[in-house]
Amino acid sequence: MIRVRVHVSLKKSVFDPQGRTIHEALGGLGYAAVSDVRAGKFFDLAMEGDDAAAAKAQAEEMARRVLSNPVIEGFTVEVL
Amino acid sequence: MIRVRVHVSLKKSVFDPQGRTIHEALGGLGYAAVSDVRAGKFFDLAMEGDDAAAAKAQAEEMARRVLSNPVIEGFTVEVL
Repeated sequence: MIRVRVHVSLKKSVFDPQGRTIHEALGGLGYAAVSDVRAGKFFDLAMEGDDAAAAKAQAEEMARRVLSNPVIEGFTVEVL
Repeated sequence: MIRVRVHVSLKKSVFDPQGRTIHEALGGLGYAAVSDVRAGKFFDLAMEGDDAAAAKAQAEEMARRVLSNPVIEGFTVEVL
């Protein structure tokens, strides 16, 4: 069993309204040290087998095809 | 400037319909090696200052108070 984590986030050039809203809420609560917030999603995949490199390659394919929108999002894949 | 990443995910005992739906979709596309999917959110915070321990402590407070629902979600905080 291999555990893989895929992070999906908006590209830096894409406006992130969720992050902006959270940033403003934190500022309103007095957390003035926060200068930026970006929000994203992650997916923890449990994959059968014991070939970590193959699992990572397949997770990258799934991230590209299913888990992200490549027009506006980027992703990273790490084996846990 | 300190960068902190907060991961928020449903507690293991809480049903994750988003993860289940993605799992079923991946199975339908032929990714049979995937045995489980759990979905979560993450937040990248940029924080002013250079005291990483203080930034992490403040991020943990924000995670508990604002970024997560402690009834159904857990969180982890890491300084990047």
